[in-house]
Amino acid sequence: MEKILRQQIEKIVKLTDEEFSFVLSHFTLRSFRKHQYVVQAGDAAPNDHFVVKGLLKSFYVDDAGKSHILQFAMEDWWISDPQAYHNKLAATLNIDCIEDTQVLFISIDNREKLCAEMKKIEYFFMKKTTAGYIALQRRILSLMSQTAEERYRQFIQFYPLLLQRLPKALIASYLGVSRETLSRLSAS
Amino acid sequence: MEKILRQQIEKIVKLTDEEFSFVLSHFTLRSFRKHQYVVQAGDAAPNDHFVVKGLLKSFYVDDAGKSHILQFAMEDWWISDPQAYHNKLAATLNIDCIEDTQVLFISIDNREKLCAEMKKIEYFFMKKTTAGYIALQRRILSLMSQTAEERYRQFIQFYPLLLQRLPKALIASYLGVSRETLSRLSAS
Repeated sequence: MEKILRQQIEKIVKLTDEEFSFVLSHFTLRSFRKHQYVVQAGDAAPNDHFVVKGLLKSFYVDDAGKSHILQFAMEDWWISDPQAYHNKLAATLNIDCIEDTQVLFISIDNREKLCAEMKKIEYFFMKKTTAGYIALQRRILSLMSQTAEERYRQFIQFYPLLLQRLPKALIASYLGVSRETLSRLSAS
Repeated sequence: MEKILRQQIEKIVKLTDEEFSFVLSHFTLRSFRKHQYVVQAGDAAPNDHFVVKGLLKSFYVDDAGKSHILQFAMEDWWISDPQAYHNKLAATLNIDCIEDTQVLFISIDNREKLCAEMKKIEYFFMKKTTAGYIALQRRILSLMSQTAEERYRQFIQFYPLLLQRLPKALIASYLGVSRETLSRLSAS
């Protein structure tokens, strides 16, 4: 179960068995059912979640009650409300499960303790945050400059596995297109 | 000149004079004139830039030749093509000067050397990257869920100093609205 976390970390820094046990002692394993909320807007100081099994989404509900999907996460991905997590604020995002899900979660206090004790892990988180930053910037460019069709093609190119597991309605919401547009694109 | 870099770092980690000299030895000071390019799409392995004086923008030119502004940066901010910088790739973004500008730039190799030798600075960069990640996510939510008027109000709220220094046409481009819409909003 925890092996995939170790594999991800070891793509960046090597760990002994003892070191990995120490890392893991800062995480908690938890299961959620499909449709269950992992984080709800308003929750105090939500955790960061490494997905061991399953599929989740983070989304923002605007004042008019409309949902906007920010991110999906499947096995080997991380998902959180980063603003609330890093600044210890109440969540403004929601995170719920699209499939039955298991996560290893870590509180910001535990992450800070772990990083202070183990510089290798701080380096790992730095690399992951940088990769996340680059992905977000790609998303912004995509929202600003691409047509619906280009956004769909890019999604397929970057996330082929997600495409197979996600309901079409969620992909449409993530891309900011109507279901009709998406059906037309995925048929062509 | 270099004092504002030290001030920024010391908001996160304290440095001795000797340590700051060591940090600074990894940077190079360079001046640019208004309209001059700091990074041009296609440049190999561009640098990261800390703004000592002046004002810059980063932008993407799409296949149809249309510019999309990703970011502005004035004194005490950082600006780069993060994907090209961190992955040592050719730039896909452009960065040019809106005013006469001075930057302290650092190559990715120098940054990696510096971080390896000085864990305090790695921690500083981690905090800055995390803050940048949060700002990008706010921008994505804004592009997905806000009206032009809401985006304009948020821009004023977060960046009041920028507002005074930027030509209206650039603010309109950044917000993804027409100049007419912006004039209407800023008059109301």
